Amino acid sequence: MERIAVFPGSFDPFTIGHEAIVKRALPLFEKIIIAIGHNKEKKCYFPLDKRVKWIKKVFKDELRVEVAVFEGLTIDFCHKRGVKYILRGLRTSTDFEYERMIAQTNKFMAPDIESVFLLTTPELTAIHSTTIRDILKHGGDVSRFVPKEIDLDSI
Amino acid sequence: MERIAVFPGSFDPFTIGHEAIVKRALPLFEKIIIAIGHNKEKKCYFPLDKRVKWIKKVFKDELRVEVAVFEGLTIDFCHKRGVKYILRGLRTSTDFEYERMIAQTNKFMAPDIESVFLLTTPELTAIHSTTIRDILKHGGDVSRFVPKEIDLDSI
Amino acid sequence: MERIAVFPGSFDPFTIGHEAIVKRALPLFEKIIIAIGHNKEKKCYFPLDKRVKWIKKVFKDELRVEVAVFEGLTIDFCHKRGVKYILRGLRTSTDFEYERMIAQTNKFMAPDIESVFLLTTPELTAIHSTTIRDILKHGGDVSRFVPKEIDLDSI
Amino acid sequence: MERIAVFPGSFDPFTIGHEAIVKRALPLFEKIIIAIGHNKEKKCYFPLDKRVKWIKKVFKDELRVEVAVFEGLTIDFCHKRGVKYILRGLRTSTDFEYERMIAQTNKFMAPDIESVFLLTTPELTAIHSTTIRDILKHGGDVSRFVPKEIDLDSI
Amino acid sequence: MERIAVFPGSFDPFTIGHEAIVKRALPLFEKIIIAIGHNKEKKCYFPLDKRVKWIKKVFKDELRVEVAVFEGLTIDFCHKRGVKYILRGLRTSTDFEYERMIAQTNKFMAPDIESVFLLTTPELTAIHSTTIRDILKHGGDVSRFVPKEIDLDSI
Amino acid sequence: MERIAVFPGSFDPFTIGHEAIVKRALPLFEKIIIAIGHNKEKKCYFPLDKRVKWIKKVFKDELRVEVAVFEGLTIDFCHKRGVKYILRGLRTSTDFEYERMIAQTNKFMAPDIESVFLLTTPELTAIHSTTIRDILKHGGDVSRFVPKEIDLDSI
Repeated sequence: MERIAVFPGSFDPFTIGHEAIVKRALPLFEKIIIAIGHNKEKKCYFPLDKRVKWIKKVFKDELRVEVAVFEGLTIDFCHKRGVKYILRGLRTSTDFEYERMIAQTNKFMAPDIESVFLLTTPELTAIHSTTIRDILKHGGDVSRFVPKEIDLDSI
Repeated sequence: MERIAVFPGSFDPFTIGHEAIVKRALPLFEKIIIAIGHNKEKKCYFPLDKRVKWIKKVFKDELRVEVAVFEGLTIDFCHKRGVKYILRGLRTSTDFEYERMIAQTNKFMAPDIESVFLLTTPELTAIHSTTIRDILKHGGDVSRFVPKEIDLDSI
Repeated sequence: MERIAVFPGSFDPFTIGHEAIVKRALPLFEKIIIAIGHNKEKKCYFPLDKRVKWIKKVFKDELRVEVAVFEGLTIDFCHKRGVKYILRGLRTSTDFEYERMIAQTNKFMAPDIESVFLLTTPELTAIHSTTIRDILKHGGDVSRFVPKEIDLDSI
Repeated sequence: MERIAVFPGSFDPFTIGHEAIVKRALPLFEKIIIAIGHNKEKKCYFPLDKRVKWIKKVFKDELRVEVAVFEGLTIDFCHKRGVKYILRGLRTSTDFEYERMIAQTNKFMAPDIESVFLLTTPELTAIHSTTIRDILKHGGDVSRFVPKEIDLDSI
Repeated sequence: MERIAVFPGSFDPFTIGHEAIVKRALPLFEKIIIAIGHNKEKKCYFPLDKRVKWIKKVFKDELRVEVAVFEGLTIDFCHKRGVKYILRGLRTSTDFEYERMIAQTNKFMAPDIESVFLLTTPELTAIHSTTIRDILKHGGDVSRFVPKEIDLDSI
Repeated sequence: MERIAVFPGSFDPFTIGHEAIVKRALPLFEKIIIAIGHNKEKKCYFPLDKRVKWIKKVFKDELRVEVAVFEGLTIDFCHKRGVKYILRGLRTSTDFEYERMIAQTNKFMAPDIESVFLLTTPELTAIHSTTIRDILKHGGDVSRFVPKEIDLDSI
């Protein structure tokens, strides 16, 4: 059976932290679907089409990475695509408590799906999309926090 | 003196996690008041009257459980009702840090009131009202997370 | 049915933190048994008879507090004495993680016994028996950390 | 070179916890700038001019404390003022995780600026501006949580 | 390239928590080596040969699980066996902080090896080998915490 | 008044994490005393004279760093030397909880002494003397974790 993982998130924006998790997890899976959770009622900072385009650009040479958009629950998207693994990165113990709540809830609702975690490397631990948006709102430069293929000013 | 506890919350919705805490605490107290904190400015997912009705239904055979609605501070409600104990459940260390802040603030303001904690059992640790609302918003089924007496679809 | 709690520990030594938990919990229970876990293979700093004597002295005027010594598991001691509640204090989130592990293990093994937690008040949060022993070993004065009835030098 | 620290925050309102950090840090620095981060899009509970006035009143006899308002990133404000130190208080491990994320992000963007931390004393650990605003919204009395020079009712 | 994982530990004893992690991880890997770290200077509760025998018995029908003993660093054992993945279970945020320290140190020393984490399911979260040994020392029954194939009394 | 800090520890061995904290704190203080706590009853991995010599070598060109050995409580050493500041590094939230306990106990016993904290930079977060000793015991190479001036093999 094929080992495919869904890497879900809002990626608002996609950071070098996200990029590192996908790259490190690629040897473990045959394919990784970077799945942008879309919710019409939740306003994001960057438009959906930009986020899709940016991530595609980062992985344009990596045939085993697919970028997808989904609405609804992550586990429903996994079922629809026949995926058995959810990939997540862990940075801090605050992350851990949150991810554990989500993973255990998912496990109740979809016992056939396994959440697999990698730890972020230390130098990427402080990188959060939230922080990046905050810096942007205050006029700061965030280019060092996103993959070089992404030009946030192009928006 | 009567040992009465207030179990405060927004219960939006009341979960099997809440139900378990109340049932386990009942032998310790002569009466437990499940007190729904109501705040006109804070929008809840489920209407107040539904939440009251649902909890009453869960405990309809338990004469020592009362369901009440209050506005203002929990400690003021306790004083008004002559209650000396606040009952709370603890799930995770994130919960703990939050509950400690609340309990210590309450202790400063009302030294006569004691906060008493039970730990959730492991299989209920991941159940949060917030998660339940999230699953509902994404069209998922949450019936396993609420007491069987509660029919969320009846709304 | 009588509400009796066991407050287990090694109390090496008994601190003002322990004293405060017992005093605050007394209105909730009809009786509290301060139960010193004794383990022949584990070396304690203060001799067992001293620890018993000191705690008895602190509560000599409180008829509802009993001091006992037990070997083996806390839940076995509770069963032997017909006790349904274990009383514990929580100081920090490190405490919380440890106490949760113990309480959940106890719940597996003895579902009829409930662990009940009070939070230490802020000014007592830093008081650990371990720290007190460390200060003593380095020749420091710890009188402010133990109840005034306890004269550690009397050893 | 002069040792000046910026103590940034929204101070909505300034608490006895904030006051204690500034007073304890004063011997370490030649000057402390209490810097109120102002963001036109973020609605605060108390008006900016009140917050400025209140803090000035608290430190009216302390010549080495300045009260300032800034927009944008804290590190940009530090650079503009030639300041090398950011002063922060740490209450809990939840605080710690958040502060670490901010401090590490700042260190990436401005390696010349050092974040220096003091721990709040135990009796002030539970005091959060958020809690104070919550108590106020519910009609409670918060006078014990703010410096005596601040009369929140004067608003 | 073959995806093989090392699942290192002292397994003193092997618990149903360990068993669950291995079983859940098996679909992800082609082979899992349960590697018992042996250290002549560190005294274990159960003899090494018993621990090996017990784990082999649990997985006697699972050809893709191997049981091995190693001395020295886990990463050196991985290199010797040509293994690229270390498998670990995460129970609590205390676990997380410890595992992160180990995983980041391993990553510094062996950047080619990836640590992969699964979260324990809630009902297994409280199960620690340390607790099991403690219960045994106090004469308690731990049969519910170890796989049914393991008869600890056979020692 | 002179701003002098004591940086206490067992430094068994002194790591690049310790080195970074001292170097980053030097602009804040006029002098830093690296104080090796010596306890005859506690066995260390490296002999005391080696530890002293190694740290002196690291800071041989920094006149404002002194290396000292003390027995007893850190606060007593501070009082003897007329020092008002204890300098500590914080890596993780586990560290934080421990350091808070120590700092609050010190504050009770010596209100005139202030503990000042810097956060370790991300790439040094995983470096613990304990881990280093573990790696050494297993025959690993730890040269990257100690300052280049320290040759642990010279022992």
